[in-house]
Amino acid sequence: MAKRQFKYVGHSVPRVDGVDKVTGKAKFVGDIVVPGMLYGKILRSPYPHARIRAIDPTEAEALPGVVAVLTAADIDDLNPIYNGRPIIAMHKVRYVGEPVAAVAALDLATAEEALGLIQVDYEELPTVVGIDAAVKKDAPLIHEEKGSNIGTHEQVRRGDADEGFTQSDEVVEDTFTFPMVYHYAMEPHSVIAHYDDNDEITVWSSAQHPFQVRSDISKIFKVPPSKVRLIINYLGGGYGSKSYTKFEPLALALARKAKQPVRICNSVGESMITVRRHGARVRIRTGVKRDGTIMAREAEIYLDTGGYDDNGPQVTARSATRVLGPYWIPNIRTDAYQVYTNTGSAGSYRAIGAPQVIFAGESQIEILAAKLGMDPAELRMKNLLKTGQELRPGLKGIDANLTSSLKSLIRESGWKKSRKKKNAAVGMGCAITNAGATPVSVAMIRMQSDGIANIAAGSTEMGQGVRTTLTQIAAEELTLPMEQFRMLGADTKVTPYDSSTGSSRSTTLMGTAVQKAARDLKQQFVKIGAQILSVKPRQIQVIDGALISGEARLTFKEAFERRFGKGAGGEMIGRGEAGPEITDHKLPVFWEVGMGTAEVEIDHETGEVKLKKFISVADVGKAIHPEHCIAQEEGAAMQGIGHTFFEQLIYDNGQLINPNLVDYRIPTFDDVPEEFHTVLVENGDGPGPFGVRGMAEGGILSVAPSVCNAIDRATSVRIKDLPLTPERVWRALRDAKK
Amino acid sequence: MAKRQFKYVGHSVPRVDGVDKVTGKAKFVGDIVVPGMLYGKILRSPYPHARIRAIDPTEAEALPGVVAVLTAADIDDLNPIYNGRPIIAMHKVRYVGEPVAAVAALDLATAEEALGLIQVDYEELPTVVGIDAAVKKDAPLIHEEKGSNIGTHEQVRRGDADEGFTQSDEVVEDTFTFPMVYHYAMEPHSVIAHYDDNDEITVWSSAQHPFQVRSDISKIFKVPPSKVRLIINYLGGGYGSKSYTKFEPLALALARKAKQPVRICNSVGESMITVRRHGARVRIRTGVKRDGTIMAREAEIYLDTGGYDDNGPQVTARSATRVLGPYWIPNIRTDAYQVYTNTGSAGSYRAIGAPQVIFAGESQIEILAAKLGMDPAELRMKNLLKTGQELRPGLKGIDANLTSSLKSLIRESGWKKSRKKKNAAVGMGCAITNAGATPVSVAMIRMQSDGIANIAAGSTEMGQGVRTTLTQIAAEELTLPMEQFRMLGADTKVTPYDSSTGSSRSTTLMGTAVQKAARDLKQQFVKIGAQILSVKPRQIQVIDGALISGEARLTFKEAFERRFGKGAGGEMIGRGEAGPEITDHKLPVFWEVGMGTAEVEIDHETGEVKLKKFISVADVGKAIHPEHCIAQEEGAAMQGIGHTFFEQLIYDNGQLINPNLVDYRIPTFDDVPEEFHTVLVENGDGPGPFGVRGMAEGGILSVAPSVCNAIDRATSVRIKDLPLTPERVWRALRDAKK
Repeated sequence: MAKRQFKYVGHSVPRVDGVDKVTGKAKFVGDIVVPGMLYGKILRSPYPHARIRAIDPTEAEALPGVVAVLTAADIDDLNPIYNGRPIIAMHKVRYVGEPVAAVAALDLATAEEALGLIQVDYEELPTVVGIDAAVKKDAPLIHEEKGSNIGTHEQVRRGDADEGFTQSDEVVEDTFTFPMVYHYAMEPHSVIAHYDDNDEITVWSSAQHPFQVRSDISKIFKVPPSKVRLIINYLGGGYGSKSYTKFEPLALALARKAKQPVRICNSVGESMITVRRHGARVRIRTGVKRDGTIMAREAEIYLDTGGYDDNGPQVTARSATRVLGPYWIPNIRTDAYQVYTNTGSAGSYRAIGAPQVIFAGESQIEILAAKLGMDPAELRMKNLLKTGQELRPGLKGIDANLTSSLKSLIRESGWKKSRKKKNAAVGMGCAITNAGATPVSVAMIRMQSDGIANIAAGSTEMGQGVRTTLTQIAAEELTLPMEQFRMLGADTKVTPYDSSTGSSRSTTLMGTAVQKAARDLKQQFVKIGAQILSVKPRQIQVIDGALISGEARLTFKEAFERRFGKGAGGEMIGRGEAGPEITDHKLPVFWEVGMGTAEVEIDHETGEVKLKKFISVADVGKAIHPEHCIAQEEGAAMQGIGHTFFEQLIYDNGQLINPNLVDYRIPTFDDVPEEFHTVLVENGDGPGPFGVRGMAEGGILSVAPSVCNAIDRATSVRIKDLPLTPERVWRALRDAKK
Repeated sequence: MAKRQFKYVGHSVPRVDGVDKVTGKAKFVGDIVVPGMLYGKILRSPYPHARIRAIDPTEAEALPGVVAVLTAADIDDLNPIYNGRPIIAMHKVRYVGEPVAAVAALDLATAEEALGLIQVDYEELPTVVGIDAAVKKDAPLIHEEKGSNIGTHEQVRRGDADEGFTQSDEVVEDTFTFPMVYHYAMEPHSVIAHYDDNDEITVWSSAQHPFQVRSDISKIFKVPPSKVRLIINYLGGGYGSKSYTKFEPLALALARKAKQPVRICNSVGESMITVRRHGARVRIRTGVKRDGTIMAREAEIYLDTGGYDDNGPQVTARSATRVLGPYWIPNIRTDAYQVYTNTGSAGSYRAIGAPQVIFAGESQIEILAAKLGMDPAELRMKNLLKTGQELRPGLKGIDANLTSSLKSLIRESGWKKSRKKKNAAVGMGCAITNAGATPVSVAMIRMQSDGIANIAAGSTEMGQGVRTTLTQIAAEELTLPMEQFRMLGADTKVTPYDSSTGSSRSTTLMGTAVQKAARDLKQQFVKIGAQILSVKPRQIQVIDGALISGEARLTFKEAFERRFGKGAGGEMIGRGEAGPEITDHKLPVFWEVGMGTAEVEIDHETGEVKLKKFISVADVGKAIHPEHCIAQEEGAAMQGIGHTFFEQLIYDNGQLINPNLVDYRIPTFDDVPEEFHTVLVENGDGPGPFGVRGMAEGGILSVAPSVCNAIDRATSVRIKDLPLTPERVWRALRDAKK
């Protein structure tokens, strides 16, 4: 690939939404006041498992200022189930916090007061607490009709695992657990819904996937998609917590009844009981030859999915693959089970289904390396998948040079030197994930007569900088300054179809669509220029927004005016699509790569472990905006630090007992490692524009295993349960001494 | 042109908005309730000409329920002038009805009550009444800074008119007058405006030209066009009364102050004092050779434009050309003057500037024919412009076969037979107009994964059937049933740029854009099909929404799914543009043709004239929807019947004294001629899709001259002033007897 000089791409340009955000002009759902808007609150179940005998909203309805009270009786005419859950509890509640009723009132205080006036008659049912209790033979059933508390069961098979273990010289088996954790986006999920008297629906939401929400609402409310409009301005962070449809249908059903727009903003506590990452228990067994060749892996993964599906089936499916690590394993037998319990539903969270199983797999790699007396980096290198090799049957071969990433990590982290120190507290973690992106994104660039090019792209801006990145791509292709572009916010009535903003997909897929739209528009200018300058299109060079042929020069603006007439208005539309052809109809669109090393300091008196140094490697293909890439990788690592050291939603018999920042500890700036460094690998081999590959999830993967590996290396104490609270570490160290 | 079989085009299919309209589901601005909406009323000047010394809104502001009172003091920060008028009167009022203040209140009754509480201190100024008074040397000035009461002065010159008259055998000179008339659209102009706290502007309006209103608002309120959104759902008739920007800026300034959306719906009376057709006085002189060859024409046109410009300059400019008729005239000298008077502003009205001058010109043609003893049809035929001939310098040559239209008229009306009867009350009128369409229209067709194709076209539906016609064009090109399309209403945030809906332009220009968008989309399907079926694109035939090659058949839906993946969503976008290339960069885009004959019955006792038979010819190139074409032509003729027989806004010293249906008589079904027939000429020679040429304005042109010619033919009494009230006719007949 010839080295190309880029003007916008590859440069850490100012964010296009930066000024609006720092000046407070950027509007989040909680800032938006739609005229005539009511304030909504949700009445939530206080019981983890109960039958609803009756609900009486009369008293609440009579409270002055209350406009509508919604209960299951109001949704008879709808298709109420989506993602395995009802809009609002029908007959039964399955977790503490499940919506049972909702109130729309003139102000929030009245709505809150009204909640207390709704009479609900519950019949308590036995609570299913945790994975073990859920999968017991005679466990109470959370979904009676399913016949068991197991939802999805996903398997991956290759070769003969038993035979593989037989051929192995060393076989180890361990069980790891991973806590339920909360995303802690700055903004809890928020929705404004309006159902007008013409069955036209408008929803402002902090949803990551507007088109999927549109589709769900269309089905639930039985209106064509063209009558459903999702407007997503900004999200105050997502990380998967706002993936798929959340309580948009509830807010809409309430607005429909109230005949006025209603805004519902979750509190942090409400978010914590309604969305989280799956807790997990992973039994994993790996066999290796004496030379380090991995012969077989078996895994049994139980994921605590909570009361309803949400995205649990997909998380489960993904975990069964992701547990394999970035290695060639000839014999595979993995089983992943989605387990219902009486807790809030787990959904998507950065690298769905991966941290839980990669913690297990990458811990075990170093257990094996110790047994073999090998440098664990060497053991990894030996088994790393080569480019083109298949991780498992049915998926596209590896599209990245993993060896190059691992070499970078070894070099940049000073791995070899640190290994030479005896009992140095250093450890490593390596992972890849099959990015779950559906490769369908469509974009337009609509150039106006004032020279402004509106980029119509349905990707949602949640802090990741997608508006900036897409603008860079468009600017580079059209050779126009960034200032000449406007990113239209995601709006299903305005921006073309995009399957989602998640799975690290936007730069690769929407980026491709935008790049094609820009090229399409540029080509139109070239055609106009060729006609005006009487040359062939290929004789025209496009430089800095002008069409150049020999001495002749025509700006886009001039070409536009020649096209439509001076002062006559007009519009030129470039369109672009990314579809499954982007990776030749084989998923994943790309493999995401995350590798890291940790160096820790252990206080043997208190059990406190400090992450001193963390180096991670992200193979980004091409960094469109290097600072964003680094920020994403570091942000991911910080979330990894969270679940490794502190974070855990603690349930006591179905009651979440720490739904606040005092009792639920998240990383602060104090927890940033003293040495914290991200290496961007840019081999230009990604499927996106300029060779880009999705990133931003990889950084979360290696923290937990590398930290536990470092502790083990320093203390010979292997910890298999997270988070690493001082108490847990202190006990482990004490037990080891015994 | 090979005869092509059409499935949708050329058929009078059901209107796509028909069911919504007859069931009341179609929302007009007056039906739309935006949440939080206030009700606005405008305080209007009671004086035709006065200085405003002071306005005190205090008392009105204090009225419970009043949210905001707008006066000129509130628009200091804006660019307040557009189309020659201020948003709201500043310092001075120039007609009775001029907005002086406006109130937004919780309900209409309060808003109306508040108007009475606003104290305005006026200093009356002398009123300028009528054209004669306005152009007097020492007339009071309506716009002091202009130095006279004449605005635009337009001239057309060719050859030497004086020399032409010298060479003529007969020269006649007459002066004709034409009344001020009102469009009487069913729906008076209505606007909802919302100015949100992020400077985002949304305006729902019954405006015909959303993009022009957007542009004006952008300039007035100093916000970029991308922040201004005009939504035009349906109009209850336009006829030019809703062309350009009306009181949208006023409603918006009021909403901005109220910080809530405000709806203002004009009453009929308010519309009648604020928008109308120009009254006119036309002195016209024509010279012919004995053989009927026209040698010269001179015209002096004075148009009463009212207190402000609105569209007066363009109307004036157009009249100076349109007075020439459809004839080759070697020597031309026409002058048109836009005259300010202290009356409501005149603006666009079906065939701007044409009925006034064509009444004069076509009356005079029959005066000349009588003098020459020629059949007036023969005189016309002799002088008709040939295809390609130039009516006047600077305009495109005639693109229609006028001879064929006149022949059709002569044949279909039984002209020759009726002329044989002595004193038969039959007359004729022939006209062409240079349609004032700016040739810039852009469209998209956005095919969704459910198979629905959204047509994004910014043309406004005002009853003319544009949504149906554009859908027919798209359906024909894409070979898909009409039901599979949805017309997105005009919405500047959604639909691409379109210069206007007016000048009979939409079927020709937006039709072209839609046709190209459809072809573009079809081509994309063909490409996909060719790839899947492994054939060349040209080996694929598109029939009934399927791609056919030999035995192989692939529906669009299947191709779409093959493109993006089954159930994976996606969107395919076809785009199309019509620009000045459509007529090789020369205006007009097309010449519109209107010819007709009238047969009347005269009651000599009462002076009542009844139109018994009216035959008109419209050269439509190709009728996309024949019934719509006929309805348009007949509707235009009915408006012609209105200004010919009844309609006239009567001002008494600046006060409109008949602003209601009792005193301002419009045609009713009783006035429909017994024989009323439209002939559509379809030579396929228009510049639009399938050879279409714009129509719908021509039918208004020939009524007045053909009726007056018929009266003259029957009674030898020439009436040169409209309308033909019984009193006026009776007096004319009586005076002739004297």
